[in-house]
Amino acid sequence: MSTEFAPVSPPDETAKREAVARHAQLTKPAGSLGRLEELGVWVTACQGQCPPRPFGRPRVVVFAGDHGVTARGVSAYPSEVTGQMVANFLTGGAAINVLAATAGATVRVVDMSVDSEASPPAVTAHKVRRGSGSIDREDALTEDEVRTAIEAGQAIADAEVDGGADLLVAGDMGIGNTTPASVIIAALTGSEPVAVVGRGTGIDDNGWMRKAAAIRDGLRRARRVSTDPVALLRTTAGADITAIAAFLAQAAVRRTPVILDGVVSGAAALVAEELAPGAREWWVAGHRSVEPAHSLVLEHLDLKPLLELDMRLGEGSGAVAALPLVTMSARVLAEMATFADAGVTTSP
Amino acid sequence: MSTEFAPVSPPDETAKREAVARHAQLTKPAGSLGRLEELGVWVTACQGQCPPRPFGRPRVVVFAGDHGVTARGVSAYPSEVTGQMVANFLTGGAAINVLAATAGATVRVVDMSVDSEASPPAVTAHKVRRGSGSIDREDALTEDEVRTAIEAGQAIADAEVDGGADLLVAGDMGIGNTTPASVIIAALTGSEPVAVVGRGTGIDDNGWMRKAAAIRDGLRRARRVSTDPVALLRTTAGADITAIAAFLAQAAVRRTPVILDGVVSGAAALVAEELAPGAREWWVAGHRSVEPAHSLVLEHLDLKPLLELDMRLGEGSGAVAALPLVTMSARVLAEMATFADAGVTTSP
Repeated sequence: MSTEFAPVSPPDETAKREAVARHAQLTKPAGSLGRLEELGVWVTACQGQCPPRPFGRPRVVVFAGDHGVTARGVSAYPSEVTGQMVANFLTGGAAINVLAATAGATVRVVDMSVDSEASPPAVTAHKVRRGSGSIDREDALTEDEVRTAIEAGQAIADAEVDGGADLLVAGDMGIGNTTPASVIIAALTGSEPVAVVGRGTGIDDNGWMRKAAAIRDGLRRARRVSTDPVALLRTTAGADITAIAAFLAQAAVRRTPVILDGVVSGAAALVAEELAPGAREWWVAGHRSVEPAHSLVLEHLDLKPLLELDMRLGEGSGAVAALPLVTMSARVLAEMATFADAGVTTSP
Repeated sequence: MSTEFAPVSPPDETAKREAVARHAQLTKPAGSLGRLEELGVWVTACQGQCPPRPFGRPRVVVFAGDHGVTARGVSAYPSEVTGQMVANFLTGGAAINVLAATAGATVRVVDMSVDSEASPPAVTAHKVRRGSGSIDREDALTEDEVRTAIEAGQAIADAEVDGGADLLVAGDMGIGNTTPASVIIAALTGSEPVAVVGRGTGIDDNGWMRKAAAIRDGLRRARRVSTDPVALLRTTAGADITAIAAFLAQAAVRRTPVILDGVVSGAAALVAEELAPGAREWWVAGHRSVEPAHSLVLEHLDLKPLLELDMRLGEGSGAVAALPLVTMSARVLAEMATFADAGVTTSP
């Protein structure tokens, strides 16, 4: 077993320059589409051809898992909701299903570590365990489990890319998962617990204090291993967040663009950039979550979000909300007329 | 002829309350979709039924016109581009065509006052004149012309709503049109010229100074009539912006939601709210343009934009970029499972 990633090569510079040049020829004032132009240039560089192709198979993978630390009262919901939501994803009733259908993406759910036996076999092929260790006092995973979860994330990314996915989103589902995410973010950005504790699904003030204490205790353990990404995942992440980190890293290895979601996939992205340096060039930030730790992620990765809509759901929802912008940015480059085509006078 | 508008009634309060209640039953933490939830509540209130219907016919109407003040050197492009772009809209090569196709909207273009005879008859049914007076020294329109342009905007909104349009966007196309828009905005928000002068399509510093002078002179004339919206349109707007103002007002009279675009339709929106008080309840701001005057519009109308992507194209582009968010917000309310449907435990 290996926790190694192949080197990440950057998006294509030639295609990028061609996209910049093409934008100047399209029938609009130069730069007038603002960030949609930058986004289209990025898509073109990721695809390595100008004009870019329409996306054929935008794909959301929701990684579900439970977290032992939930027993400390860090969430407004009980752990049983994680498995119930897996069932809801499979019948198409969750927010991510509706958003993805609108945006033209399909959704896959994988049960990495849900604390239930109820998931159907179709989603448990990569399951590592039920739940995770309570990270305020024990490791989330064993050495073997963290390797298995990393390999699962790699294998899932490979399978999706091999299956034609040309734009990926990692979603998360797991009651309590903003607690490990916040610990990881604090560990990798050198932040204090109070800077990362958010309300998650909507905890009250007493819950916030319990969560802050759990994050403080988890961070004490995480800081010892913060320079070793695999050890950090083992200590802190759980199998779901570990698999997301590996999935994001492997997507970049496979030269496949990703729209990042919120605080949980953001925590995984921080680790992914450590596992596979340069991976961040393959990512765009879909949105800024209201979770305070998410802004630390965006700053650390130097990513400016496309949307700021005060969302805090996870599941990939903030990424998929931004997917139409990414689609538009590519289609503008592919489909707009040039000044020459349309017989429009250019600026003097 | 009349420049009167029927009273605007507000969106439906009962449907609004039902949408708020429904959001609390859907399988997500309360409020976790942030502004997408508020947006869905607004759509529901506009439609007057909960859950809302999917949009059947989102429709963009691009109002094209030239402006005499362009002869003062206020734009980076010559007036001939306006007519050339009308042709480009009709063959589907412009940004708005591509964005609308992605977002599921259709595009109509109307030549209100292009300074050319080249537009095909299909788009000139409401044409008022070629160009407009140079507003730094003369009125944009005569008394008769402003009435005709208002009636055109009303008639176009009526025809679109009668034809099934259930979500409207007003786009603009007209070289030089940010100059009259900036004058209108300064007049109605009590701003100084320097606060409203932007770079438009991308003028250089000398052009900026010429534009600032034209806005200063136009504003001197506009301020005399700033309490009379029809006189303000006659003095300042041109037939294109006048028709947009009437279109936006009439859309509200007809209880049809609108996504507002940028600075030109924003200027028209300020006047529309004067023509038909309460119209703004029927609008959502698609984006914040980089034009400084647009932020004054948003503040004055108390609208918070959905997107801030540094766009400054017009054509309805910033509104249509936000259309998928509006679509998503409605579909979330219509299609997500409730906690009861999905057997998901609610928060204690």
